[in-house]
Amino acid sequence: MPDISPAPSFNTVQEAYSRLEGVVVRTPLLESPALNEKLGGRLFLKCEALQKTGSFKFRGAYNAISTLSEMQRRQGVFAFSSGNHAQGMAYAAKILGCKATILMPEDTPRIKLENTRGYGATVVTYDRYTESREEIGETIASEQNLTLIRPYDNVQVISGQGTCGIEIAQQLEEKNLTADLLSAPCGGGGLMSGISLALSKLSPKTEIYVAEPENFDDTTRSLASGTRQSNSGDHRSICDAIVTPTPGNITFPVLHDLTKGGLVVSEAEVAQAMRAAFQYFKIVAEPGGSVALAAFLSGKIDMKGKTVVAVASGGNVDTDLYAKVLNCEI
Amino acid sequence: MPDISPAPSFNTVQEAYSRLEGVVVRTPLLESPALNEKLGGRLFLKCEALQKTGSFKFRGAYNAISTLSEMQRRQGVFAFSSGNHAQGMAYAAKILGCKATILMPEDTPRIKLENTRGYGATVVTYDRYTESREEIGETIASEQNLTLIRPYDNVQVISGQGTCGIEIAQQLEEKNLTADLLSAPCGGGGLMSGISLALSKLSPKTEIYVAEPENFDDTTRSLASGTRQSNSGDHRSICDAIVTPTPGNITFPVLHDLTKGGLVVSEAEVAQAMRAAFQYFKIVAEPGGSVALAAFLSGKIDMKGKTVVAVASGGNVDTDLYAKVLNCEI
Repeated sequence: MPDISPAPSFNTVQEAYSRLEGVVVRTPLLESPALNEKLGGRLFLKCEALQKTGSFKFRGAYNAISTLSEMQRRQGVFAFSSGNHAQGMAYAAKILGCKATILMPEDTPRIKLENTRGYGATVVTYDRYTESREEIGETIASEQNLTLIRPYDNVQVISGQGTCGIEIAQQLEEKNLTADLLSAPCGGGGLMSGISLALSKLSPKTEIYVAEPENFDDTTRSLASGTRQSNSGDHRSICDAIVTPTPGNITFPVLHDLTKGGLVVSEAEVAQAMRAAFQYFKIVAEPGGSVALAAFLSGKIDMKGKTVVAVASGGNVDTDLYAKVLNCEI
Repeated sequence: MPDISPAPSFNTVQEAYSRLEGVVVRTPLLESPALNEKLGGRLFLKCEALQKTGSFKFRGAYNAISTLSEMQRRQGVFAFSSGNHAQGMAYAAKILGCKATILMPEDTPRIKLENTRGYGATVVTYDRYTESREEIGETIASEQNLTLIRPYDNVQVISGQGTCGIEIAQQLEEKNLTADLLSAPCGGGGLMSGISLALSKLSPKTEIYVAEPENFDDTTRSLASGTRQSNSGDHRSICDAIVTPTPGNITFPVLHDLTKGGLVVSEAEVAQAMRAAFQYFKIVAEPGGSVALAAFLSGKIDMKGKTVVAVASGGNVDTDLYAKVLNCEI
C-alpha cells in the first residue's frame, strides 16, 4: 500500500501545517526559571501531552486521513499502534466522519485502550512480543478493504508530526531565540523525522538528537552504524509508546541526513524526568514521552549556556504507574 | 498602607494586561472531546497551573511590584501567603531586581516553601490556625520599611489576576465562542474579582460563580447574605491555597456586583477533579486549584449544552499527596 508522495519534505510539512491550523492545539513551549538555574542553560519543554488525544499523534493522523480520497474515507481506515497513534487515529477519524479499526498490543495502558474505544473506534488486540502487528494488520486491512495508516512509515503522518517542529521554531522566534539543541522521543521516528524536516529550513543550525530508552536504542545504533539496526525483543520497558523494533523505511533516511545521533536513557532517568515535568512544568508526561527531557536532565549532552528544546510527546499514563513514579518506586 | 488607586476596574485590568504582555505565559485554554461527551457541554480549562511559578499569582505580583516607586522597590517588598502568592512575589521580585520577604504558614506544602526560597526570597513561617498573619505581617513590614503586597486586597494584585480573564475572553473569541458560565477557585477573591472585572466588559453575558471547598465557603455565604461572612477556623482542608478566613475588603464589593453566587465542593469532589485534570487534560492541578473544575464535574450547576470555563488556578502540590489522590486514597 504505497504512499502517493515519494518522500516527506519541508514542503509536505508546510502543507500539513496549513491543513492542521485551527484543528490542532498550538501546544505551549514552557520553561522553568528554577530548573534553568539548576541546569545552567535554558530548557524549553514542548508540551505535546496537551495535544488533542494526549499526544502529538493526532497531528499525523488527522493529516493522513484528510489527504485520503472520498472513497477511502467511506471504506474506513485501519491502524496498528501501541496506543497514542491509536487514539490520534480514532479521534481524527471521528471528526472527519470516517470509520476506524485499530490493532493494539494487549498490554497497552488501560487509559489508551479506553480512550481509543471512547472515540468510537473498533479495537482488536494482539501480543506485541510474539505476534507481528505488520502481518496481522495487512491481513485485516486487505480483508475489509480498509486503508492502512502506518504509525510512522507514512509520508502524510510524518508531515503532520513535523508541524510540531514548525510551531517550535515559531515560538522560539517570538522570543528572539533559536535552539542550539533539540531532542524528542523516538520510536519509529515519525515525530523526529517530521521535526527534523521542519527545522532543516526554519532553524538549520539546531543540532537534533533522537532520544530512546535503553534496550530500545535501535535508532541510536542505526544512526551510528549508518544502517537500520533492530532491538532484540528480549526486553520490556515502561516506555510503551516507543518500543518499536527498528527505525522506519521512510523515517530512517531523513534521520540519517538531518540528526546528529542518539541519546539513550535508563528507566530511572525516565522516572526522574516525569517527576521534573510534574514539579517544574505541571505537565503529566508519560514514560515514553519523557525520554528527551530525561536525556537533558541526566546530562547526556552538555547544555550549559545553551538554548535547548525537549519535546514531551505524550501524557497517556495510567494513574497507578504515575503514582509509583511520584513515590520514587521507579 | 493604602493603595493609590481607589478601586480596581476594567481599566486597571487592561493596564495590567499591557504591563504583563510578554512577561506572563498566555496559558492554554484546553478542552477534552472525551470529557465534553460525558458532560453534555463544552468545558474549557484555563490552565494557570502552567503559569510561571505554577499559579496565576505571578500575574498580580508582577503587576503590583512594577507599579511601585523606585524607592519602594529598593527597600523591598513583603508578603504573607499560603504559598502561591509567595512564589509569585518571590519570582516577580527577583526579575524586577527587588528584595522579597515572605511570611508563610508552617504547614505550607514543601514544594511551595522550597520554590519560594529557591527564587531568593527570605521566608518567615507562622501557625496559620493560631496566629494572625495580618498582625505579624504588618509588624515585620513596618519595622523593616518594606512595602506590604497583600495577596488579594490590593488593587494592582487584583488587576494583574484579571489579565487571566482577558485572555479567556480572547481565546474563546478566537474560536467564535463566548462562555455561558465561568467558575474559578476563590480564597480571598483576587482572581475571581479580577476575572469578573475583565469579563464585565468583554463578555458581559457570562454568568460567574466563585468555587470554594466545604467548610471554607465564606464567600459563597457572603454572596448569599450580602455581607462578609467568616469561616469558623475549626476545620482543615487539602485546599491549602484557598483556606482564607473571609472575603477581602476590596474584592467582596466586586464579587457582590459581578458574580451570581458560589459553588461549594467536597474534598472527594476535589480529588476527583484532580484525577480528571490528570486524565483528560494532562495537567497537574493542586487541590485548591481544582475546586472550579470539581464544581462542574460534580454537577453543582447545570452545564448541559453550554460553553463553560473552569480556571485551574495552580499546580503546586506535593508528590505524596498527588500520588494518594491518583490512588483514590482521597
